[in-house]
Amino acid sequence: MGLETFMNARSVAIIGASKSETKRGYQAIRTLLDERYEGEIYPVNPKLDRVLGFKCYKSVLDIDGPVDIALIATPAATVPAILKECGQKGIPGAVILAGGFGETGTNGRRLEDEVVRAARTNHIRLIGPNTSGMLNLKSNLNLVGLKEAPKGEIALLTQSGNMALSLITEAKIKSHKGFTYYVGVGNEADIRFHEYLEFFRNDPDTKAILMYVEGMREGRKFLQQAYKTTKEKPIILLKSGRSSTGKRSAGSHTGALAGMSEVAKGAFERAGIVVIENSDELFPAAETLSSCPPIRNNKIAILADGGGHATIASDILTDYKVEIPELGEKTKARLREILPAAASVTNPVDVAGGTDDDPSLFADCARIILKDPNIGGVLIVGLFGGYGIRFAKTLSLKEEDAAHQMGKLVAKRNKPIILHSLYNFERPHALELLRYYNIPVYDSLDVACKCISVLAQYGSYLHGYHAKTNFVLNWRNKAKPEGNEIISTARKQGRTSLLEHEAKNLLRLHGASVTMDKLASTADEAVTLAKDIGRPVALKIASPDILHKSDAGGVLLNVKGEKAVRKGFETIVSRGRKYRPDADIRGVVVSPMAAEGVEVIIGTKIDDQFGPIIMYGLGGIMVEIIKDVSFRVLPISRLSARKMIETTRSAPILDGVRGTPPCDKKALISLLLICSELVEAYPEIKEMDLNPVILHPEGLDVVDARIILHEKGNCSDLTNGKC
Amino acid sequence: MGLETFMNARSVAIIGASKSETKRGYQAIRTLLDERYEGEIYPVNPKLDRVLGFKCYKSVLDIDGPVDIALIATPAATVPAILKECGQKGIPGAVILAGGFGETGTNGRRLEDEVVRAARTNHIRLIGPNTSGMLNLKSNLNLVGLKEAPKGEIALLTQSGNMALSLITEAKIKSHKGFTYYVGVGNEADIRFHEYLEFFRNDPDTKAILMYVEGMREGRKFLQQAYKTTKEKPIILLKSGRSSTGKRSAGSHTGALAGMSEVAKGAFERAGIVVIENSDELFPAAETLSSCPPIRNNKIAILADGGGHATIASDILTDYKVEIPELGEKTKARLREILPAAASVTNPVDVAGGTDDDPSLFADCARIILKDPNIGGVLIVGLFGGYGIRFAKTLSLKEEDAAHQMGKLVAKRNKPIILHSLYNFERPHALELLRYYNIPVYDSLDVACKCISVLAQYGSYLHGYHAKTNFVLNWRNKAKPEGNEIISTARKQGRTSLLEHEAKNLLRLHGASVTMDKLASTADEAVTLAKDIGRPVALKIASPDILHKSDAGGVLLNVKGEKAVRKGFETIVSRGRKYRPDADIRGVVVSPMAAEGVEVIIGTKIDDQFGPIIMYGLGGIMVEIIKDVSFRVLPISRLSARKMIETTRSAPILDGVRGTPPCDKKALISLLLICSELVEAYPEIKEMDLNPVILHPEGLDVVDARIILHEKGNCSDLTNGKC
Repeated sequence: MGLETFMNARSVAIIGASKSETKRGYQAIRTLLDERYEGEIYPVNPKLDRVLGFKCYKSVLDIDGPVDIALIATPAATVPAILKECGQKGIPGAVILAGGFGETGTNGRRLEDEVVRAARTNHIRLIGPNTSGMLNLKSNLNLVGLKEAPKGEIALLTQSGNMALSLITEAKIKSHKGFTYYVGVGNEADIRFHEYLEFFRNDPDTKAILMYVEGMREGRKFLQQAYKTTKEKPIILLKSGRSSTGKRSAGSHTGALAGMSEVAKGAFERAGIVVIENSDELFPAAETLSSCPPIRNNKIAILADGGGHATIASDILTDYKVEIPELGEKTKARLREILPAAASVTNPVDVAGGTDDDPSLFADCARIILKDPNIGGVLIVGLFGGYGIRFAKTLSLKEEDAAHQMGKLVAKRNKPIILHSLYNFERPHALELLRYYNIPVYDSLDVACKCISVLAQYGSYLHGYHAKTNFVLNWRNKAKPEGNEIISTARKQGRTSLLEHEAKNLLRLHGASVTMDKLASTADEAVTLAKDIGRPVALKIASPDILHKSDAGGVLLNVKGEKAVRKGFETIVSRGRKYRPDADIRGVVVSPMAAEGVEVIIGTKIDDQFGPIIMYGLGGIMVEIIKDVSFRVLPISRLSARKMIETTRSAPILDGVRGTPPCDKKALISLLLICSELVEAYPEIKEMDLNPVILHPEGLDVVDARIILHEKGNCSDLTNGKC
Repeated sequence: MGLETFMNARSVAIIGASKSETKRGYQAIRTLLDERYEGEIYPVNPKLDRVLGFKCYKSVLDIDGPVDIALIATPAATVPAILKECGQKGIPGAVILAGGFGETGTNGRRLEDEVVRAARTNHIRLIGPNTSGMLNLKSNLNLVGLKEAPKGEIALLTQSGNMALSLITEAKIKSHKGFTYYVGVGNEADIRFHEYLEFFRNDPDTKAILMYVEGMREGRKFLQQAYKTTKEKPIILLKSGRSSTGKRSAGSHTGALAGMSEVAKGAFERAGIVVIENSDELFPAAETLSSCPPIRNNKIAILADGGGHATIASDILTDYKVEIPELGEKTKARLREILPAAASVTNPVDVAGGTDDDPSLFADCARIILKDPNIGGVLIVGLFGGYGIRFAKTLSLKEEDAAHQMGKLVAKRNKPIILHSLYNFERPHALELLRYYNIPVYDSLDVACKCISVLAQYGSYLHGYHAKTNFVLNWRNKAKPEGNEIISTARKQGRTSLLEHEAKNLLRLHGASVTMDKLASTADEAVTLAKDIGRPVALKIASPDILHKSDAGGVLLNVKGEKAVRKGFETIVSRGRKYRPDADIRGVVVSPMAAEGVEVIIGTKIDDQFGPIIMYGLGGIMVEIIKDVSFRVLPISRLSARKMIETTRSAPILDGVRGTPPCDKKALISLLLICSELVEAYPEIKEMDLNPVILHPEGLDVVDARIILHEKGNCSDLTNGKC
C-alpha cells in the first residue's frame, strides 16, 4: 500500500496522550493545536478522560470515526500490543517515537523484529521507531513538536533529528524557502528510504528532496528509485559515517579495498543525486536546486567588484570542474561600453569601481552576460547589497532596482544568478528582494560557489547520456546451460569456490579471452600438454583446498623444455603436500605464458547495502600501495565501463608510456561487461577476482581467475536471497 | 629603517587633499576626524587654502612640524615628484593609493621602478602602490576610509582590499574580535610581506596575524621571518591563485612538475603557518588562534546532544587527522553519574536528552572531560544556546550559568572549548557570554571543526621538533676546491651544464654513491675499461651538445663482451653524429650496470618565489603518470628528508612489497641531504636531475645525473643574484 493516506492523514490518534508539558504525548497535541491542524485529533490514554480540551479515549478501538495515522508516544515494550489494536481499528500507518529497539543491541533488535511482524500482520506501515517523527507542512500535520517550521517546496528526509532541526532552523533564519514534508526515518524498520523517495517523487508540491543519511537498509532499491526521481526533481544528499567505514577484513582484493563510502558516493552520483560533503552546503544546495534553473552547459561567468573574491571564486569553481570561459566579443564590447576603462571584461568580469556610484550597473552587466549564448549562469561576488550601507543611503534604491531587474532577467533567460554578498548579515532590502525572485544570496563565498556548481552538475546530468544505468539486475537472464552446469557441479561437490579451470571456462563461455589451461594429473601428461602448447608454460597447482596458490609455492612461471616441466610438476605437487597434507591435489594446470603487457585486476563482490559491485584497477603496486582503483555498482553499461577505466589516476598508462603501444581498451571494456553479465547470470557467484589480466595492443589474457560462490541455499539476489 | 615611526605615525600629511566627498583626499581626512585620530593632520593641495576646517598646505615643505607619514592620494604619474618633496621634508613613510603601476604592464612597471628609486634616494619606505591603505586601530590612524572597524588583537595583512573588507565586516558582525592593524600590501613595490610580518611580530598588542596572499615577491625571506614569528604568535594564511599555477614549460622532471601552490603550502606549513583553504574558515581560524590555548597533544573530545552532529564532526576531524580518543575510565564513570542511562559516555559523548531539563549539565560534562589528562580540548556541537529559545525561557538562565562556568574552566585548565550552535543566529545571551570568555561560537559545524583542528595543528607545531628548518641558506659554506674547479671549468668553456661525469664527480665529492663512469675516447679504450669493470656495462654518449642522450640513441645498456662493447661504441658515436652533425662528441662513457632495485628520482630547481627547492619521487610511471612526488624548500634537515619520502603515496614500496627486501632509506635520506648541500655550496647550480637513482637493500646507485648551471654572472643567491 502507498503512504498517501497516512502521510496526508486527516485524523490522528495520539497514543500515550499526556497532561504533562514535558511529555511528547502532550506536546504533540499542543503542537497540532498551535499549528492549526484541521484534521481530527484523538488522544488515547486509558487513564485520562480529557486532554487539552479533547475527549481522551481508553483505546483506539473506542474512537468512532476513521483514524489515518497513529502517533505512538509510549515506551518500546508496549508497542506490539498497541499495533495489534491499531490493526483492528484499520489504521494504515503509525509513527513510533520510542528508542530502545535495534539501535541498542540484540534485545532491542528482537523487539524491533516483533514490532515489524505485528505491523505486517496488521497491515500497518511504520515510520521509525527511534524517530523524531513526521511533519506534513501542507496540512499542518505536525507530529514532531517543532513549531513554526517554514513551508515551502523541499521534502526533508533524515536519519538524525538534530540534523533535521539544523536544516529547518537554517531554512527559517537564512532563506525564504521551506518544506513540504519532513520524515525522520529512524531505524528504517518498515518503510525504507526508497519508499519515502517514491512518495516525494509523486508529490506535486515537492520540488527538491533533501536527505541526510548515515546508512541504508536497501541501497539497491534506493538507487533504482533515485534514478527515476532525479529525472524529475533533484535529490540533495549528505552521507556521513565516512570515517568508520572501509574497515572490512581482507578477502579478495576487492574485499580488501572496497570502502562503502566511495562506492556509495559514486553510485549516488550515477543515479543523478547531488552528493554534498560539507554540512554547511546542504541546505543552500537544496534551496538553489529547488528554485533555480539548472545550467545546461557547465559554463558560468563571475561578476565581481574586486579582485580577491573573483580569484578565490575562480579557484573554487575550477576545483569543482565548472568552466569559466572567455566571453564572446560582442559581450565584451557591450560591457566595455558601460564599464570604466580600468574594468576587466574578461571572465571573471571586474567592474573596478564602475558600480560605486550606481550599483544598478550590476543588473546591466548581468543582462549583457546572460545574453551570451555560451554562458549558462552568473555568479556575482562582493559587496552588492552593501553599497547603500557602506557608501550612501540613496544607493540602496539603486540596488533594489537592480534586484528587480535581475529577478525578471532570470525568469526571461531561464539561466540562474547566484549572489555572494558580504552584507547578507545586515539583511538589506535588496537582498531580500533577490530571494523573493528566487535568486539565492549567501554571505559565504564557498557556499555561493558550491551552489552554482551544483546547478551545473545537475544540469549536466539531466542533459547527459544516462539511459542504461537504472540499477536493475536481470537475474539469470543471460545464464548458459554449460555455465549452470559448472556451478552446480561445484555445489554438488560441496565447494564454495570454482577451480581455476572452471572459473576460466565460465569466463570463456561468455566470451572472455582467457589463457588456455589444461589439467595434467601426471608429469607425463604435463610434458605432453607443454609440447602441444609449443612455447614456455606456466604450471599451477590444482586443488580445491589451496586457494592462494603462490603462498603454497604452487606456481612456476616461464617453464621451458621437457625436463623442466617434469621437474616442475613434481616440485609443485610435493610443495602442495607439504603446505597442506590433507589437500585434495588433482594435479597441475599447464598454460601458455602470456605475452608481456600491462597488468590489471578486476573484482566483483556483494556490497551489504548495494548488492553486486565491481572493482577495476591497474595491477601490482598500483592496487596494493596506491589503491588506485574504481568501483561501480553493477550492472554497468559500456559507457560506465569506460569511465571506470578513465577515472583511475593511472589510466594514461593504458595509452602507452615511453614508447610502448597503447593497450586494447575495447577488449578491457568488453571484459568488464562480461564480468557484469556473469554476476547477473549466475547469482550463486559471491566474489570474482581476475588477477592478473594482461592487456596487449590487441586483445588481452585473463591469466588467473578466482570465483567464490555463496554458501549453498544463498545467492546474490537481495530480494529473494535464496537459491 | 624600521616601520615603527610611520606605522604608529603621530602626524599625517594628506597629499591630494580635496573638498569633494567622493574623493579619497576628502574621505581620508573625514575618516581621521570621525575616528578621532589624535595626531596632527596636514592636508596638502596647492589649489586649496582650507579643507574640513584644517589649514591646507601648498606642499609638504610648507608644513612646520614633523610629518611621520604621507598619504598620497594623487594620480600615479605625480608620485615620483611628490616623493622627492617628502624626502626633503624627511617623511619616513608613504602610502601610495593610486593604481596604474606594475599591475598594468610595461609602462606601469617602468613608473613603479621610478617610484621605488625615488623612495630609496629619498629614504622613504612605501606602502603600496595600488593599495586600499593602512589602518592603525590602536591610535585611530585610519588611512583606509573604512569606518568602525573593530579593535582587537589580530593584525591583518592582505593583497586584496575586498578581502580585507570581507574579513573586517565578518569580525564586526560575527565575533567579539578585532584588529590592531590592517595593511593592504598592494604591489609590494618597496615594503615586502616579511617586513610587515616582522613589525607585527614585534608589536606586543598583536596576538595573531591574518593574511590573504595572491603572490609574493620574496618568499624566502617571508619563510625565514614566518619561522621566527610562529614560535611567538600564530600566522593564519589563505593563498589564492591555485588554478592558474603549475603550468610551466617542462625542463627537467622537476621543472615539469613543480606547482607553486604545492610548494608554497608545504613551505608555509613547515614555517608553522596555519594554511587555510576555504575563505569561510579564514577569520574564524584567526579568531580562535588569537584567543584560545593551543592543543598540545592533538586529542580532543566531542560533546553532543544528538547523533547527527557528532557523526559529521567525527568525519571532519578524522579528515583533519585530529584524534578523538577513548576517554579514561574515571572520566567515563563520572560522566555516567550525571548523565541518563541512554547517554553515550564514549567519545563522542552524547548526552541523549540529559540536558533537556538543565543545559548547565554541559558545563559539568566539559569540566569532567577536560580533567581527563589525555584530552586536549572539547568541541561542543548541537543546540546549546537554543534551549531557552526552543524549550522554556527559564533554561536560558541555566545556559548562561553554564557559559560562565565554561569560561572559567578554559582559563583554569588552559585547554580550549569550541562551540557549534544551531542557534547562533538568534544571538542568545549565553553565546555572547561564551565569546566574552574567549570561547568561539560558530553556527557552521564545518567551521567549528576546522577551528578546533587548527588549535591542534598549531599546538603540535609548537611542541614538535622544528629547530633546523629556519630556511636560511649558507651559500658556499660547504663548497670544496675540487667542486669549484669542476664548475669553473665548465663556465670557462662557456657551458651552462656539466657533462655527466663531471656531475657525478661533484656528487661523489660530497659523498654520494654514484656509478663509476669513465670516458673512453676510442673503441679500444672502451673495451679496456669494460674489461676492468668485469661485468656488463652501460655505454652513454659524452657530448656537451647532447643533453637528452636517449633521444639521440646514445645509450646502450647491459653490454657484454669485447665485440659488443666495440660495436656499441661505434653505434653510439655514429648515431650522435646523425642526431646533431655539429655536436662536440668527446667519446663514450663506460659504467658498470647497476644491480636491480627500486628507481627513484631527485631534482632541484630555483623557484621564482622561494629560491632553491628539491623534489623527490619514485621513478617511472609514478612520477610521469601519477605525479606522486614531494617538494621541499631547501635546505632540508634529516627529519624533513625523511618526511619527504614518507609523504609520497608510494612510500610503502621502499619497505618492500611482495617479498622484496626493504630499500636502504638511510642512504636515500643522505643523498637528499647531499643534494641540499650541493645547491647551497655551489650557487652556480640552477637545476639538478638525478634520474634514475637505484635503491638497494644496502646502499644505492646514482645512475645518471644532470646538472644545469646559471648563465655566467648569475647565481641562486637571491639576495645577491650575481656571481
